[in-house]
Amino acid sequence: MLATIIDGAHEVRVEHVPDPVIADPTDAIVRVVASCVCGSDLWRYRGIKQVTPGSRIGHEFIGVVEATGDAVDAVKTGDFVIAPFYVCDDTCVNCRNGVSTSCLAGESWGALDRNGVQVDGGQGERVRVPLADGTLFVVDGDPVRTEEIPGLLSLSDVMGTGHHAAVSAGVGPGDTVAVVGDGAVGLCAVIAAKRLGATTIIAMSRHEDRAALAREFGATHVVPERGDEGVARIRELTGGIGADRVLECVGTKESMDQAIRSTRPGGMVGYVGVPAGGPELPIGRLFGTNVGVNGGVAPVRGYIPELIDDVRSGRIHPGRVFDLELPLVDAPEAYAAMDERRAIKVLLRP
Amino acid sequence: MLATIIDGAHEVRVEHVPDPVIADPTDAIVRVVASCVCGSDLWRYRGIKQVTPGSRIGHEFIGVVEATGDAVDAVKTGDFVIAPFYVCDDTCVNCRNGVSTSCLAGESWGALDRNGVQVDGGQGERVRVPLADGTLFVVDGDPVRTEEIPGLLSLSDVMGTGHHAAVSAGVGPGDTVAVVGDGAVGLCAVIAAKRLGATTIIAMSRHEDRAALAREFGATHVVPERGDEGVARIRELTGGIGADRVLECVGTKESMDQAIRSTRPGGMVGYVGVPAGGPELPIGRLFGTNVGVNGGVAPVRGYIPELIDDVRSGRIHPGRVFDLELPLVDAPEAYAAMDERRAIKVLLRP
Repeated sequence: MLATIIDGAHEVRVEHVPDPVIADPTDAIVRVVASCVCGSDLWRYRGIKQVTPGSRIGHEFIGVVEATGDAVDAVKTGDFVIAPFYVCDDTCVNCRNGVSTSCLAGESWGALDRNGVQVDGGQGERVRVPLADGTLFVVDGDPVRTEEIPGLLSLSDVMGTGHHAAVSAGVGPGDTVAVVGDGAVGLCAVIAAKRLGATTIIAMSRHEDRAALAREFGATHVVPERGDEGVARIRELTGGIGADRVLECVGTKESMDQAIRSTRPGGMVGYVGVPAGGPELPIGRLFGTNVGVNGGVAPVRGYIPELIDDVRSGRIHPGRVFDLELPLVDAPEAYAAMDERRAIKVLLRP
Repeated sequence: MLATIIDGAHEVRVEHVPDPVIADPTDAIVRVVASCVCGSDLWRYRGIKQVTPGSRIGHEFIGVVEATGDAVDAVKTGDFVIAPFYVCDDTCVNCRNGVSTSCLAGESWGALDRNGVQVDGGQGERVRVPLADGTLFVVDGDPVRTEEIPGLLSLSDVMGTGHHAAVSAGVGPGDTVAVVGDGAVGLCAVIAAKRLGATTIIAMSRHEDRAALAREFGATHVVPERGDEGVARIRELTGGIGADRVLECVGTKESMDQAIRSTRPGGMVGYVGVPAGGPELPIGRLFGTNVGVNGGVAPVRGYIPELIDDVRSGRIHPGRVFDLELPLVDAPEAYAAMDERRAIKVLLRP
């Protein structure tokens, strides 16, 4: 089969690799219907995060089950499934506590599993899925229509991650919410904030196309300024005190600083941007203002059940963050397009 | 009248100062029935925080109103009142948001008010109270009995502050809670955790008298170990994952590290220890484990209405944290006793 491989900075290729086979009774084999490139994949693509040459890559995919191991019960051949961006058993204490990203049996796409066997990356034609019963969400009900593919794929990561930012910040009815970051996750965070009842949603964006999408998703205001000017604009829009909840969807020192300073006293920052080497959080400022910081790597597996009906019914449209679709063989171009900001998020079809 | 004055490290004296008078129509004059020394007062006493020689000190007191300005409505001469550890109007947007410590008109005991007039410290015979309607809580119902004094005084700061740690951490029924710090605030945090329904409460204490009081207040376990050993003990007691909620009531680098590492994935640290010059929070660890950090300077004014009935009825006994009572003239000894850990918290009676 074909799979995407990364060798180093700006070195992505699509190559023939062995077809996956069931290696453990809890495995399933999934034929990928769609996968995509994540903003976090760009860290390796840009050389910010080190790469072992020849690594499989990709951690968001949806597809159809082709085979299952003897110990797999909940997932059957022929099921249409959504894979979250990590492997989990959905039964351990951390999974039961809603933090399946800290699953005690957790594994990662593209790495070795607990038995030392290669787990496929998501950007390929097929994937061996460990702990299939826990990891995979089965899409039941009406057969999946082609136009539903992007929305369902967003539940692998970005929609659930934006939702986690909003949940972590405690967004509720009537809240004023600011969203830092206008990538796919930030845009999904706008959807999530509106879905949870926020009435004023301020998207921080300086890209006209992304700002337009944010407005379609429910943003009531767009603030292009950053830094001190950005904070000042948020304060102007919030009676001088800052937003009740701020969703940090970037992960840089500057974006977290922006988020914390844009939050009103007693408010909360919900953050999902993977921290890019810091910063440590300024405890003195947080203490003085009672601004809390909550969030982390999003346990999206647990959010799929509560989000999927809104996606399938068309009440929310997170699939619109995919603004470029390419065949799998063009994965190198998909990375380049996202790296050069020619695309918000690229969907790949084998 | 007599008032306590601090001139520098280990230099506390009780001196005659002018009686306070109404300086603003929103002022009240309160005759102090009881005040006390705060752990945070020790920072100045120990020279960790700089002192302007001749400063008034003390920020927790209860007493009886002796006079009110023309604009004071809610507070009347003869009322028995509780003063929180700060001045607030209880009407601004931050106060309405439950963060009266960020009151837009807020002031501090012992400092100058917005008109440049001295505000008395709490450790004295009388105090001019700015913004009396917002700042003071009137104790109504049955007349205050002598034995109620310590409990009511605890609502000025420590009981409300321990409660804030628990509320910020989101303590709820059935939770497992660890409390870092066995000072008056940590002990009150044990009370608060139990009151909010926690069923397992682990007090981290290496002082037998304090550990005993923690047990009386509701602690189900006491862990004397600190650092890696302390974390290991908490994990042993919590099925290997850490406590659902951890209440940080100290404010040092070591205590915050202990708190964060003792929290289970997806759990929350509620912190009220005044940060002693750091540390900044480790974002990478917080992100990976979805441990949130919430809290800050406790808005105790807003908590008095919900706590006072439990204090007056004897359902909770936060007044027991006062284990030494001295006349006001012995304030220097009160500081020494707390500095040398001969007392948990000292009550002063003019």
